[in-house]
Amino acid sequence: MMGDQVAKILESKNPKFPVGKHVVGDFGWRTHTVSNGNNTFDHIIKKIDHYVFSDFGKLPLSYGVGILGMPGNTAYFGFLEVCKPKAGETVVVSGAAGAVGSIVGQIAKIKGCKVIGIAGSDEKGKWLTEELNFDHFINYKTQNVFKTLKQVAPKGVDCYFDNVGGEISSMILNNMNLYGRISVSGAVSGYNDTSVPKASIVQNPMVFQQLKMEGFVVYRWSDRWSEGIEQNRKWIEEGKLKAQETVTVGFENMFKAFTEMLDGKNTGKAVVKV
Amino acid sequence: MMGDQVAKILESKNPKFPVGKHVVGDFGWRTHTVSNGNNTFDHIIKKIDHYVFSDFGKLPLSYGVGILGMPGNTAYFGFLEVCKPKAGETVVVSGAAGAVGSIVGQIAKIKGCKVIGIAGSDEKGKWLTEELNFDHFINYKTQNVFKTLKQVAPKGVDCYFDNVGGEISSMILNNMNLYGRISVSGAVSGYNDTSVPKASIVQNPMVFQQLKMEGFVVYRWSDRWSEGIEQNRKWIEEGKLKAQETVTVGFENMFKAFTEMLDGKNTGKAVVKV
Repeated sequence: MMGDQVAKILESKNPKFPVGKHVVGDFGWRTHTVSNGNNTFDHIIKKIDHYVFSDFGKLPLSYGVGILGMPGNTAYFGFLEVCKPKAGETVVVSGAAGAVGSIVGQIAKIKGCKVIGIAGSDEKGKWLTEELNFDHFINYKTQNVFKTLKQVAPKGVDCYFDNVGGEISSMILNNMNLYGRISVSGAVSGYNDTSVPKASIVQNPMVFQQLKMEGFVVYRWSDRWSEGIEQNRKWIEEGKLKAQETVTVGFENMFKAFTEMLDGKNTGKAVVKV
Repeated sequence: MMGDQVAKILESKNPKFPVGKHVVGDFGWRTHTVSNGNNTFDHIIKKIDHYVFSDFGKLPLSYGVGILGMPGNTAYFGFLEVCKPKAGETVVVSGAAGAVGSIVGQIAKIKGCKVIGIAGSDEKGKWLTEELNFDHFINYKTQNVFKTLKQVAPKGVDCYFDNVGGEISSMILNNMNLYGRISVSGAVSGYNDTSVPKASIVQNPMVFQQLKMEGFVVYRWSDRWSEGIEQNRKWIEEGKLKAQETVTVGFENMFKAFTEMLDGKNTGKAVVKV
């Protein structure tokens, strides 16, 4: 089973990985790993090398699999490079309370955008607007996303960071402005189904509003990996970016943490502490 | 009702439009039009100005609403600018026997691509492969698009020019290669429905293959309008590009021609001759 870890180096024959330092890698669901320093999934997709942590200062090591790791860089590159947001534009984020979405919305605020988050509970919504400074929140379980969006984004949507896919995304596309940009990070709405779910086709708004939609895997920006981490760390230190983790303790609880993440029960990055 | 015309100038108070010359404009479903030379839909979208025909030589005037007009430029700019095809790549065109699709496929061949056309009758398919030099044809009414595509495009699809939307498009997206490009020109599959049709969500292939999808309206390239017309005319004169029209005679038959076009009964540009 895939899964990124922050691991302590216990033994080493590789001078690039000194004993006592911490390393981030896709070691999977294991307590101990023997690694040659290469990446497990190199044959599937070019991922970054395992890397030894730079000094996080007072920040927790777990940030290495969250805001200062893959999810943080997914938000940083996937939002900025694909959506190319401009100050004053309106940005919508679905899966807004998740590891990636909560960072995307905060980066959008840093860039001077109006930010609307979509998530599945009012508790998450309260956290997004009160703690993370989102301008609006839509609860897709209790509100009509299409109609509510018309009210909270009367000027239309310029950028959409899509974590979920499905009908919610179709409704948002139908509220977008000319030359709007859609960054597709995931389609969690379809992950629990055995067949691919159906939703209203996207081609009409794509044509009429001349939208641009792009899907991405964050490892596309492997060669700029440290840029994202350093910028996010700087924003955390300046108080502009807040990290959030749902920490589960105990290796034996990994399955529970994973299924709760898919069910949308967590806020921010799902971390298991062993 | 909207509709482009090649009209002869009968009277004129505007020296830019001399009597006896021909002019192309969105005059709608009318036999005679009084125009100040500005465009009817300027308030909706910036369209090109009405323009007096340049010399088409031996080519028929009706090409001005087809291969040497809006449909020709839709193919030229919409395919080349959005898909950015490279020689050796595999290109799929849906609505391949239509006014735009039939030109897109031929331009793709000129650019050295392998071209697969999708349409709704074997007669159209025969025309595409035998007359227009398409490499393969898929009849979406009698063949499984997903499976047939696996056979005729074993290396996967790099560019998709989408005229139809709907399930066909979802199936093609699931056959695309890393960094594939999708140019969305229309969604004719949805035009006859009173509600927006549903189809398998596109977000999964968008993410996994890091695809880029862009919708467009051809008037985006208004400032380069004559470039497309001149290039297409050059290709026609060189024998690399063939025009096709389904001509209906008589103003009273416009409605019939229009509904048959929507039903997919025509090949190439639907023209009504008055």
